[in-house]
Amino acid sequence: MSSNSSGKIFNFNTWGESHGKAIGCVVDGVPSKIELSEEDIQIYLNKRRPGQSKFTTQRKETDQVEILSGVFEGKTTGHPISLLINNEDQKTKDYSDIKDIFRPGHADYTYWSKYGIRDYRGGGRSSARETAMRVAAGAVARKVIWGKINNKIKITGALIQIGNSKINYDNWNESQIHKNQFFSPDEKIITEWEDLITQARKDGSSLGAIIEIRVSGVPAGLGEPIYDKLDSDIAKALMTINAVKGVEIGNGFGSVNEDGKTNVDEMSIKDGKPTFLSNNNGGILGGISSGQDIICRFVVKPTSSISTERKTIDINLQETTISTKGRHDPCVGIRAVPVGEAMIATTIADHILRFL
Amino acid sequence: MSSNSSGKIFNFNTWGESHGKAIGCVVDGVPSKIELSEEDIQIYLNKRRPGQSKFTTQRKETDQVEILSGVFEGKTTGHPISLLINNEDQKTKDYSDIKDIFRPGHADYTYWSKYGIRDYRGGGRSSARETAMRVAAGAVARKVIWGKINNKIKITGALIQIGNSKINYDNWNESQIHKNQFFSPDEKIITEWEDLITQARKDGSSLGAIIEIRVSGVPAGLGEPIYDKLDSDIAKALMTINAVKGVEIGNGFGSVNEDGKTNVDEMSIKDGKPTFLSNNNGGILGGISSGQDIICRFVVKPTSSISTERKTIDINLQETTISTKGRHDPCVGIRAVPVGEAMIATTIADHILRFL
Amino acid sequence: MSSNSSGKIFNFNTWGESHGKAIGCVVDGVPSKIELSEEDIQIYLNKRRPGQSKFTTQRKETDQVEILSGVFEGKTTGHPISLLINNEDQKTKDYSDIKDIFRPGHADYTYWSKYGIRDYRGGGRSSARETAMRVAAGAVARKVIWGKINNKIKITGALIQIGNSKINYDNWNESQIHKNQFFSPDEKIITEWEDLITQARKDGSSLGAIIEIRVSGVPAGLGEPIYDKLDSDIAKALMTINAVKGVEIGNGFGSVNEDGKTNVDEMSIKDGKPTFLSNNNGGILGGISSGQDIICRFVVKPTSSISTERKTIDINLQETTISTKGRHDPCVGIRAVPVGEAMIATTIADHILRFL
Amino acid sequence: MSSNSSGKIFNFNTWGESHGKAIGCVVDGVPSKIELSEEDIQIYLNKRRPGQSKFTTQRKETDQVEILSGVFEGKTTGHPISLLINNEDQKTKDYSDIKDIFRPGHADYTYWSKYGIRDYRGGGRSSARETAMRVAAGAVARKVIWGKINNKIKITGALIQIGNSKINYDNWNESQIHKNQFFSPDEKIITEWEDLITQARKDGSSLGAIIEIRVSGVPAGLGEPIYDKLDSDIAKALMTINAVKGVEIGNGFGSVNEDGKTNVDEMSIKDGKPTFLSNNNGGILGGISSGQDIICRFVVKPTSSISTERKTIDINLQETTISTKGRHDPCVGIRAVPVGEAMIATTIADHILRFL
Repeated sequence: MSSNSSGKIFNFNTWGESHGKAIGCVVDGVPSKIELSEEDIQIYLNKRRPGQSKFTTQRKETDQVEILSGVFEGKTTGHPISLLINNEDQKTKDYSDIKDIFRPGHADYTYWSKYGIRDYRGGGRSSARETAMRVAAGAVARKVIWGKINNKIKITGALIQIGNSKINYDNWNESQIHKNQFFSPDEKIITEWEDLITQARKDGSSLGAIIEIRVSGVPAGLGEPIYDKLDSDIAKALMTINAVKGVEIGNGFGSVNEDGKTNVDEMSIKDGKPTFLSNNNGGILGGISSGQDIICRFVVKPTSSISTERKTIDINLQETTISTKGRHDPCVGIRAVPVGEAMIATTIADHILRFL
Repeated sequence: MSSNSSGKIFNFNTWGESHGKAIGCVVDGVPSKIELSEEDIQIYLNKRRPGQSKFTTQRKETDQVEILSGVFEGKTTGHPISLLINNEDQKTKDYSDIKDIFRPGHADYTYWSKYGIRDYRGGGRSSARETAMRVAAGAVARKVIWGKINNKIKITGALIQIGNSKINYDNWNESQIHKNQFFSPDEKIITEWEDLITQARKDGSSLGAIIEIRVSGVPAGLGEPIYDKLDSDIAKALMTINAVKGVEIGNGFGSVNEDGKTNVDEMSIKDGKPTFLSNNNGGILGGISSGQDIICRFVVKPTSSISTERKTIDINLQETTISTKGRHDPCVGIRAVPVGEAMIATTIADHILRFL
Repeated sequence: MSSNSSGKIFNFNTWGESHGKAIGCVVDGVPSKIELSEEDIQIYLNKRRPGQSKFTTQRKETDQVEILSGVFEGKTTGHPISLLINNEDQKTKDYSDIKDIFRPGHADYTYWSKYGIRDYRGGGRSSARETAMRVAAGAVARKVIWGKINNKIKITGALIQIGNSKINYDNWNESQIHKNQFFSPDEKIITEWEDLITQARKDGSSLGAIIEIRVSGVPAGLGEPIYDKLDSDIAKALMTINAVKGVEIGNGFGSVNEDGKTNVDEMSIKDGKPTFLSNNNGGILGGISSGQDIICRFVVKPTSSISTERKTIDINLQETTISTKGRHDPCVGIRAVPVGEAMIATTIADHILRFL
Repeated sequence: MSSNSSGKIFNFNTWGESHGKAIGCVVDGVPSKIELSEEDIQIYLNKRRPGQSKFTTQRKETDQVEILSGVFEGKTTGHPISLLINNEDQKTKDYSDIKDIFRPGHADYTYWSKYGIRDYRGGGRSSARETAMRVAAGAVARKVIWGKINNKIKITGALIQIGNSKINYDNWNESQIHKNQFFSPDEKIITEWEDLITQARKDGSSLGAIIEIRVSGVPAGLGEPIYDKLDSDIAKALMTINAVKGVEIGNGFGSVNEDGKTNVDEMSIKDGKPTFLSNNNGGILGGISSGQDIICRFVVKPTSSISTERKTIDINLQETTISTKGRHDPCVGIRAVPVGEAMIATTIADHILRFL
């Protein structure tokens, strides 16, 4: 029942600290005879990798993944797949400024309350660096999904809001998403977002963001009543991502304003097959996929590490202040896009293996 | 890994269908020597019981719970506590009108896709009747929480919005919550809500709602990194409740509009103890409780069973229509309040037992 | 992670005490559309039922099982199957003689050490009465096995030794097993066993026994490396039965005397299919079924409740003595035969569902 | 529910193949602030390491363990501890002789039946090389046991029988165990065992063995009824070790010959504390530790890799023969001693953490 692992059949656990020797994960439950190479994983890691844009952290990591087990002659064997990334940029810098201080908004105080000890270097285990391994596990999950169902299942994440600036859904163009540094499907908003982030940095502050993920091609029948519903597993998976404070499916919180008559997603027959006249429920009914697109969103709070001085306390219960210098994402929500995709991929892979 | 159970150490599973002989649950992981009687559970069941108000379903159930095991001479023994409620109002009515038809917005079509068979009587396993047993398990959870920590831990749910009518937080009065049929903390909104529901019924429609739950007195240190965070377990637990489409913690989706400077919840020392200057994070940082009040919200979509005729299909893939006659909640969100409280109680009890 | 449940996908948990209101279990993970009736379960319960022979306990229980959920119109629905047996013979007899005394050889002292409270009536939760629900779950498991593979899979338990009196394997006749009160496959040994038990009773003592279980028709490929091997899951399952002190597979402890040359079970081809020239490994290699018969054995210690006075202590840490009056099995190993079969059935059902 | 992991709270999973890049494990559930160094682990690995004696395999591995995470400034942090050993002796030798052939007595045929693919190099995942990581996890478990209870808990394994040559219990001398290559507590039997093994090798054969493990200093109350009994968890843990075919507790299979009167382990009071007049039950009653020494035994079958030619088949279902050249243990039971100790250590650590 390790709290460092996720998934029941398709299962992965992660280990490692931000500035330890390495980070890694063990992916288990992968069926045999699926083609898998380091390159299959690397392409997703590269999307999340830090240091690629002036709008994200400048930490330098090549994040080269290594497969240590579970793959033989290019195919999975049915045994655990151990993945490892060395931490390159772990130079022993001087941590004396944060060693004994709890950074507000971070897990410093709560980890210390729980464990009485903490690896203060870069947040240690609570660092978002851990999410690199989620992306790696998510890449394996996609191969499982494609191998067990078909490669028409597509998982697409996009940034839809930064601060109070929201995309225009009419401009949604999926092909744009990977052509800009924000994973935005709306190219018209990009200049506005660049300005917002530049301004937040100047102000010594940071911004929140909302990410939407759509999954198409999912068969009806995924999900388990009552306590492992597909949507509750999605909610859990997304809420485990650092700085996430809310999750919704379909109309989500907007449901409160809907009329019962239209919200039910009426059904009809098209080409001899069941079809729906709308998708207010985000592709999930009673916790089980309906065959429609799965649509979910999650919100990422503004980055807690900012250059403006904030009040806090230290481990000796003395009041003090802190401000964060150096390389930090002014909007962690941006790099959360590939992480969110990965969590959805692992959740769906898990439910596919439970269903078959 | 049963999908009908919830929790790792404090664990309960539920069984039973809406119109079967009985419903029940088995609560396990309860420490020994905690006082527990049927009355301790009944008081919570009575809050959720149907047929109590003209604003909820008219199904008649006394919902009398029976303890069949795990309690000896008034105290828990450390062994599984089996709880059972007989279904009284299960008279074989004529189901021929819905027997072969998928009610839109419900789990009928997805269950049929998954299982190829379904107990169509009142929704069978997917009925919200199952939530009675959650409330029972939640009552046991509260006894565990009080027994292991202290009885200052308080879990309070309230309805804060029906349709587009939201309470005024300035009117929040906890003592009001159980004095009205809506679990509203704001007595001034009650007439408005009565009118809204009466109108929705007249229109053959239904309404959504938002529930807020606050937990006070929780010690710092509950929650497990990385994949069993307290907030991700809360998100999952609430999302398993019928008709819930979104969950948020603290500022939740509102975080996107927050400024990083204020959102971090600065810390200081008060009376020699760590304290926070705000609670934007809803009492959870890095997935672990900070000792502040835990604050979360969830949204319940408008009831799918409405009297207006809706388009749908049947199991023979023929187009048809359906409208729901009879006893249904026009706003299922109301009775979700005690259910949400119960899910929070079981989640916290579980994390308390993991922590100790 | 309830310790009162067994199995990962085919999963059942049990609840109830020897002299409580009822005992029961919830069987989960059963695929939908399998025919199941109370009668399907009752036939196995009747084999284990007490009061049927002068060689077993005289407790009177009809052990009528009731299905409370998960079956609709004679077929499983994919939802939890709740089974219940009322305790009929739970008349409040006077327990003052054992209320405060630890019966040696039983769980009285260890339960008290662990929980600080115990239901002393008939052993409470630690009573072998709990095994009735295993037999019920085992009956459901057989239906699953037959439904998912075919009904050629046969699970046959037999008593092969009482005290130092062992059957002659040359006399093994499967059709005999259910024609005598001992589940003996060797009818020639029955008089000897009757005499042994009569004598043990006269001596105020009891006898141990060894049970062998054979499973034929199992496909190759069941079992999961490394820590859920089929044989390790069998070992665990059998060791959970009351009074069991050892488990072995194939040649078992006899392997120590085998020669490596013959013990390897050479292979050849017969009718175009892989076949083995011997079965020293009991049908399991590397934790995975080979397609040969699975053969395992377990030992049941002599009943601890005997009429001869034994030294013990009470809860006040005073020395005292105890002797057991009344209805007790002089050789609990006899009634362990259907229980052992049931545990093998549930273990195999679980691995079949994991494999498919 | 990964089948490559063991334990519920103290949990470890292993990964890696015999001739892959590396083997490793992730140990989770370790409380914070326990001192742990690579040296603490290495001392146990050195006991199991191959190539140390002419009576075990000549494979050359230094088995140097590396801690990659979860330890900060010499102490555990409460986060996953990732351990890694590089496979040094993985030189690409020519495997064409066994590539397509199923070695009888091994997992080759069953893995192939299950997965349809196998890493044939040295047995791949099914190799006993995996047990190195169990020993590493066991070393961590001992630190947990000592840290949570005290360092008087002692886990001692010894070889008590090779082939039909059994130690004389009267010669049991614990200090001898680590002074000879057989982990024998009886120094008088060593010459005999040397001769036996030399002869088995000459004969192109191999020998089985029995190992006994004793645990002293365990408090009463460890173990969980009904399906996670301490003895059933021990049985499972030991049965997962390669080539193990039987497990017993206390008198074990010998119980069948015991008299119920003596077998019950009478109790009395000594120095004001409960004590037992015998230990036929091996320190466990009703699945829960009694405070007496825990005593268990397991049998290891004769090594299946022998130099004598054996009949078998290949993946094309053709009959063929095989004989094993080179470095193999003539009696794998010898090196199973530290592995058995490790599995007992991890099982007890797990139950200690569940109990506290």
